[in-house]
Amino acid sequence: MAPIVSITGLSGSGKTTLLEKVVTELTKRGYTVATLKHDAHGFDIDREGKDSWRHAKAGAVSVALSSPEKFVVIKNVKKEWPPERIIHSYLTGADVVITEGYKKSAFPKIEVVRKAVSSKPVCAGDEKLLAIMSDTKIKSKAPVYNINAFKKAADIIEKQIIKKHIDAKLTLIADGQVISLKPFIEALLREGVRGMIQSLKGCEGIEEIEIRIKR
Amino acid sequence: MAPIVSITGLSGSGKTTLLEKVVTELTKRGYTVATLKHDAHGFDIDREGKDSWRHAKAGAVSVALSSPEKFVVIKNVKKEWPPERIIHSYLTGADVVITEGYKKSAFPKIEVVRKAVSSKPVCAGDEKLLAIMSDTKIKSKAPVYNINAFKKAADIIEKQIIKKHIDAKLTLIADGQVISLKPFIEALLREGVRGMIQSLKGCEGIEEIEIRIKR
Repeated sequence: MAPIVSITGLSGSGKTTLLEKVVTELTKRGYTVATLKHDAHGFDIDREGKDSWRHAKAGAVSVALSSPEKFVVIKNVKKEWPPERIIHSYLTGADVVITEGYKKSAFPKIEVVRKAVSSKPVCAGDEKLLAIMSDTKIKSKAPVYNINAFKKAADIIEKQIIKKHIDAKLTLIADGQVISLKPFIEALLREGVRGMIQSLKGCEGIEEIEIRIKR
Repeated sequence: MAPIVSITGLSGSGKTTLLEKVVTELTKRGYTVATLKHDAHGFDIDREGKDSWRHAKAGAVSVALSSPEKFVVIKNVKKEWPPERIIHSYLTGADVVITEGYKKSAFPKIEVVRKAVSSKPVCAGDEKLLAIMSDTKIKSKAPVYNINAFKKAADIIEKQIIKKHIDAKLTLIADGQVISLKPFIEALLREGVRGMIQSLKGCEGIEEIEIRIKR
């Protein structure tokens, strides 16, 4: 799974603007970035009358649209999925995932504090707070940078998140939960499975293996 | 992977209307349905100025939004993904996937033929054509039903697609391609992997296992 960093802050503080600039900067530096925005109030991406809306309205639990440039999947859920589960299953292949929101999560965070909204950081006591980006003076244990210093924010993400991350070569998900493995077990499982698969027709020299098993 | 059936027909023939009714009917009968629409001309689900649009515009390869009721993932691709790949990786957990379009695919098909558009089925010679739904008389090897007989279409999907499908208990994807396995190999791999995993902490009595391995 890709490492995760969250951009937090009150509504109107400029989270999306910072996220945009940081995504562009990290992409320029050669990284593949995925994003996940938390929207407690729901979103209207699927408009009334559109085919995707009609499919979902008819009762489809997942609705996908595919075109030559992109595809989209809309999944109805009974209970909000934890961000880790969405990232694990749906945001594969990125060097870093930047989330917007999730201020109560355990993810490392960069908070945007805009004077016109509030001068009090919402993640002030959070040990995972890496930095605050603000247009006013703030007392904080975490370093404070200018609200427009997006390159600084990108530096922090590059150095403290992307480069420090050692991607597990094997990810194990049991009934939707990620199982953390000790290095010895991870290696044993990985080499055991790889050994079984490598000799199969069509599996010579492959880079990525994905296995799903149902009872 | 869920079994797939495609609703085909020319533009304006009523594919989405039939799909809606069939999805509702199959859902009433207790099945979990996912849908996938092929749109060669692209779609505008992601509107200019919306946060998801801004994330993608900034360079994010995958953009997700999550709310308590649903989540959406938008993935930019360099080359159109084959429908099987989207279904395998993103439309998991359904009893059947109904696609709209994909008339050149190898999926079993139900074609809608509407006189006002054309009286000639586009999938006439297709061996996988299960039925034609039409408002006019059509000579065809496949059975022809009234264009409004959606319960008949649901019957066909239930009997010929859902009930005939024996879901492989193990799915192996190597570098994005689904590898078909002989039953003996499938069982060997499945029981081998399950055996290794079952003894791990947190994996007692689990129903579904997912493993991803990268080189």
